[in-house]
Order: sequence, then structure tokens, then C-alpha cells
Amino acid sequence: MYAPGDVRVVDREDPRIIETTDAVIRLTATCICGSDLWPYRGAEPIDADRHLLMGHEYVGVVEEVGADVTSIRVGDFVVGSFVISDNTCEICRAGYQSKCVHADFVHGTVGTQSERARIPYADGTLVATPGMPDDDLIPSLLAASDVLGTGWFGAVAAEAGPGKTVAVVGDGAVGLLGVLAARELGAERIIAMSRHASRQALARGFGATDIVTERGDEGVARIKELTDGLGAHSVIEAVGTQESMMQAIGSTRPGGHLGYVGVSHDVQLPGDELFFSEIHLHGGPAPVRRFLPDLIDRIWRREIDPGRVFDLELPLTDAADGYKAMDQRRAIKVLLRP
Amino acid sequence: MYAPGDVRVVDREDPRIIETTDAVIRLTATCICGSDLWPYRGAEPIDADRHLLMGHEYVGVVEEVGADVTSIRVGDFVVGSFVISDNTCEICRAGYQSKCVHADFVHGTVGTQSERARIPYADGTLVATPGMPDDDLIPSLLAASDVLGTGWFGAVAAEAGPGKTVAVVGDGAVGLLGVLAARELGAERIIAMSRHASRQALARGFGATDIVTERGDEGVARIKELTDGLGAHSVIEAVGTQESMMQAIGSTRPGGHLGYVGVSHDVQLPGDELFFSEIHLHGGPAPVRRFLPDLIDRIWRREIDPGRVFDLELPLTDAADGYKAMDQRRAIKVLLRP
Repeated sequence: MYAPGDVRVVDREDPRIIETTDAVIRLTATCICGSDLWPYRGAEPIDADRHLLMGHEYVGVVEEVGADVTSIRVGDFVVGSFVISDNTCEICRAGYQSKCVHADFVHGTVGTQSERARIPYADGTLVATPGMPDDDLIPSLLAASDVLGTGWFGAVAAEAGPGKTVAVVGDGAVGLLGVLAARELGAERIIAMSRHASRQALARGFGATDIVTERGDEGVARIKELTDGLGAHSVIEAVGTQESMMQAIGSTRPGGHLGYVGVSHDVQLPGDELFFSEIHLHGGPAPVRRFLPDLIDRIWRREIDPGRVFDLELPLTDAADGYKAMDQRRAIKVLLRP
Repeated sequence: MYAPGDVRVVDREDPRIIETTDAVIRLTATCICGSDLWPYRGAEPIDADRHLLMGHEYVGVVEEVGADVTSIRVGDFVVGSFVISDNTCEICRAGYQSKCVHADFVHGTVGTQSERARIPYADGTLVATPGMPDDDLIPSLLAASDVLGTGWFGAVAAEAGPGKTVAVVGDGAVGLLGVLAARELGAERIIAMSRHASRQALARGFGATDIVTERGDEGVARIKELTDGLGAHSVIEAVGTQESMMQAIGSTRPGGHLGYVGVSHDVQLPGDELFFSEIHLHGGPAPVRRFLPDLIDRIWRREIDPGRVFDLELPLTDAADGYKAMDQRRAIKVLLRP
């Protein structure tokens, strides 16, 4: 990305092993993330000298490994997290690989909207599938790399589970997969907040039992109406704006759990409202690596189909068109084939 | 309280049973809370027509009960929460009595810096002790009413427990009893942040293993030094200012838990810092009622001595002097005897 709105597919230096813990993979598929729209829309700075290396969701085949890589082999089909992690430090062992002491974002450093990519800490970042996947599994495995893993973390952070009413703020791919995650985690009732018919339909397909079209204070009031005036036990926030956060806080009952995974932009949380809301708040960049083995397993056994969030597929060379389609909300999520 | 700095002991209408769920108690002891200093210092408005009825921490003997009160009897010695609760609604049953559907703050409505008080929802708000307490137990039982219960909630919200390093921001009575709670909950290491020798000594007496005198960014850096650069697993925030909250957030490791119980004043939490900190945040007005049976039991068996936070005792008639002493930090906490 050269500037807001300016995405180009250009030749870059070919990736190669630098550290002994690296792997080089050939991308089978990659995609455009909702978070890629922040710089595309000018809401995040782009360094004019360096451009911004785009892409952080990826599946592919390992072509080379460094001397110290032990669990990943050449020829493996792998899914990787959008954050590099060693998966051995104390923070990783506690399940927070996205805050690993060696954490680095793939976005801006590796850039997986590409044909090949060098992945640092391959053992700690990548997970191999049981074998070469059927082609129809590729979108779902790709989704695990971020958008499913992030929705899943939102649902886990919101403590979605049996007997719980879960509300989901945001009907982008992450919110929709938050619905799927809440269903998989056993939630009793799942309220998707969406005003777009196609997204409502997908939400219902993923397990939403109720749809709320209102937003802001009206959305909060509607959630309260649906929950005996108390609010939802669990709320997943998947947008990252002031309005969406306040809507999510207001929709959570006292003692309930808000899992927020929308990348926060220009948000200021009023301390007193948060204090007197008495909710649990947890979120941040999803530790996808924690969930990857389980998510791959569920996909491999065809229990879940998160790949349905991809409603447009383009060759990598047409990436710019993909950005446009997502920016204009013509597509929920765009899969790119190198 | 007639105005900031203006506390008067005056005659009020004698409390009597109004609702069938009420009890009227004769106060054995009451006290001044750190939160009472907010209006005293002009940081909270005081309605000039109504004055502000002060006092929300209380122990005493039941003198009258309404027709529907079943678990509390005339003659019982009782400890009450600083928030009225029915203890039967869905929110109460989930352990959030401070957000009961019938919740009301004792502060400003009942005002227990008095000789007698009408306590609504007596069954849900009050807990009787096993018998009439020895006089030396009174301060500790009184502490359970708020300051211990609040410190305890902070430690529970911060998930203090075995193997955990706990940092405590704030060396007021709540922070000090957060230290005690963390010890009781089995924390391995407890770092008290304090620059006052007498409070440091009390913190050590309650179980602090380390003292950090630095504040703000320097305080955060010191906590990181003491925790392999990672931050504490659990942080209890017991102040309620912007600086203390940011200090607490910065001191918590990714995936760690911040329990915040200092009443929030003019705090704005930056969404992006909170997001990327990846911590758990939980707090608010403590659901003391949840903890009261356990706390009374620990005090009754003389396992804990939270009453040590009271370092000044005055007759109720001298309440104004008590406020002055706490405002000037000459006293940590003032016990008042009606």
C-alpha cells in the first residue's frame, strides 16, 4: 500500500531463510482483512519511504526451513497466526502468543499478500494440517489464520458458553465468526447486531438466534428488552470504534463479559461508566496460535465452515480490486489466490 | 455534609420501618471512607437543598424488623454491605449484589454515620454474626462492610491466587486490605506500591513481600524489573485516578488481570493502549454481600485482622475532625462510635 486507497502488486525481493528458526512458505491463499481497511481509508499512517507490506492471513506449503525448525517440515501444508510467536516464553505458555516476548505483526513486516513469505519462529507461529487439504477446505483454513481465530478469541474472552446469551456487535467477518464461535462454545442464544440482509443471513447460518438492527443507545435498549432488562451475559465487540465499544459495554449485564477484538481506533472509555457497569473486559490482538490446533481440527473434520465469509475470490494480481470491493462493502471478505 | 469541607453532626428524623423488608439497626460503630473524601474535597457535587447523608459502613444491633424479614432477628449483631441488595435477583445470584435490580447506595440515602439507621432489604443486605462479638472484633467486622470487602473484590477480580505475583496500586485502607486479601487467596508475591513508611509497615504486616515507592511510568518500570520484564499477573487498583489506572494497566502482564476498585474520577482509558495491553479488566462497586459470610467467618475465627486499618477512633459527634484527619492523611481510616 503506497498511500490510502493505493494498493499495488509489485515485485519484491524473494524471501529466504535468515534466522535458523525461519521457514519460507509458498502461499496457497491469502486474503484482505477488515483491519487492512484502516490504512486504506487513511485512519492509520503509511510510511511514504517504505510503503506498507500488506497481508497477515495465510495458508501455504513449506518450501524451506531453517536449521533449528523441528515441528514444521518442507512439504507441510501450514496455517499461520497473524502474529509471530515463539510459543515457548512464559506469555505464550499462558496462552497469549499475540503478546509473545518475540511477538511481531506479520502485517507490515512480512506481508503475506504475496507468492512466498518468510515466517520467523516457524515452530511457534505455524501449525501443520494433518495432510494436504482438499481445495474446498482452503477458505476455512485460511479463515483460521485470523478472522476465525479472532472471532473465536472474542467469544472466549466474552465467556460464551452453555446457558449464556451472547450479543455480537459488528457484522463483518470477525463478528460473523464470533457468532459461529459462540455457537460452537455452546451458547444458548446468540443475538447478531446487523442491518444488512446478506450478513444477517450468514449470521443465522452460523448460529444466530436473534437479529437486532438497532445501533447505539437504541441497540442497547433492544438487547435489554431481549434479556429481561439485564443485558447479555456475553458480548463480542468486533468493530473498534467509540460507538461500537459503548454499545457493547451498555449491552453487557453487570458481572457479564465483554470480549473486544475490533482494533481500537480513537476510542476513549469513560472510567466512571465502565466502573459502574461492573463488567469484565478482555480483548486485544487475538492469540490465534492458542486456538489453531483446535480450529484446524474442527475444520478438518468439517464441523465448521468459516470459509463462508469469503464472498469474493480474486487472483492476487487483482488485489486492488479486492480492497475496493471491501471498502465499498460490496464484499464481506476477499480471498486472494497467488 | 453541607458543602465541601463542611461536615456537621445534626439531629435527623428517627428511622422507622417503612417497607416490610426493612430493618432498623442501632449502630455499634461506623466510619469514614476514602470515597467520602471525594465530595469533601469538592470532586463530587453536593445538593445544597438536601445536604449529603454520609456513611455507608456499619455494624450494629437489630432493633426492629419488618413483617417480611426472615433471616435477620431483633437482637442480632449484623454487618451490612454499602449497597442495598435483595440477594435474590438474577444479578445477585450471579454474585453481583452491588448491581442488584433493587440496588441503592447506602451513601446518600441511608447515611450510617448516625446512631440508628433503616436498612432496606434487610435479608439481602445484612449478615448476622454467630453471636455478640467481643469488642476487639468490632473494627474488623466494620471493615468487612466495605473497605475489606472492596479490597477483597479487587483481589478476586485481579485473580490473585497461588503462584501469582500481585501488585497493589494505592496504599489507602482499600489497597492495604487488597494486600491482605491477596495473601489470604494464596498469592506468592505481593508488591505494595507506597511511599509512606507507616503504610508500608502495615502493608508488610498484611502480607506484602515487596514495596515499590515509584509511581507512574517509573512505578511501571519497577514492577517490570521485579517480574522478568513481563508485569504482574494480578494488579489491584485502589485509587481511581487517571494516573493510578494507567499505572495499573501498565503494571499488568499480557493476559493478566487488573481488578480496579478505586471509584473512578475523571478517568478516560485510551482504547488502543488497553487493546494492545491485552489484559483482563474487571471492577466497580464491590459486591460485598457476596463475600460477607466468608469474611465474617475469617474474622470470627481471628484469622484476619483488617481492623488494623483504623488508626484513629473518635466519638460520632467529632466526625468533622475525623474527615479533617483523613483529608490531611494524618489518619488512614477513622472509626466513629455513636
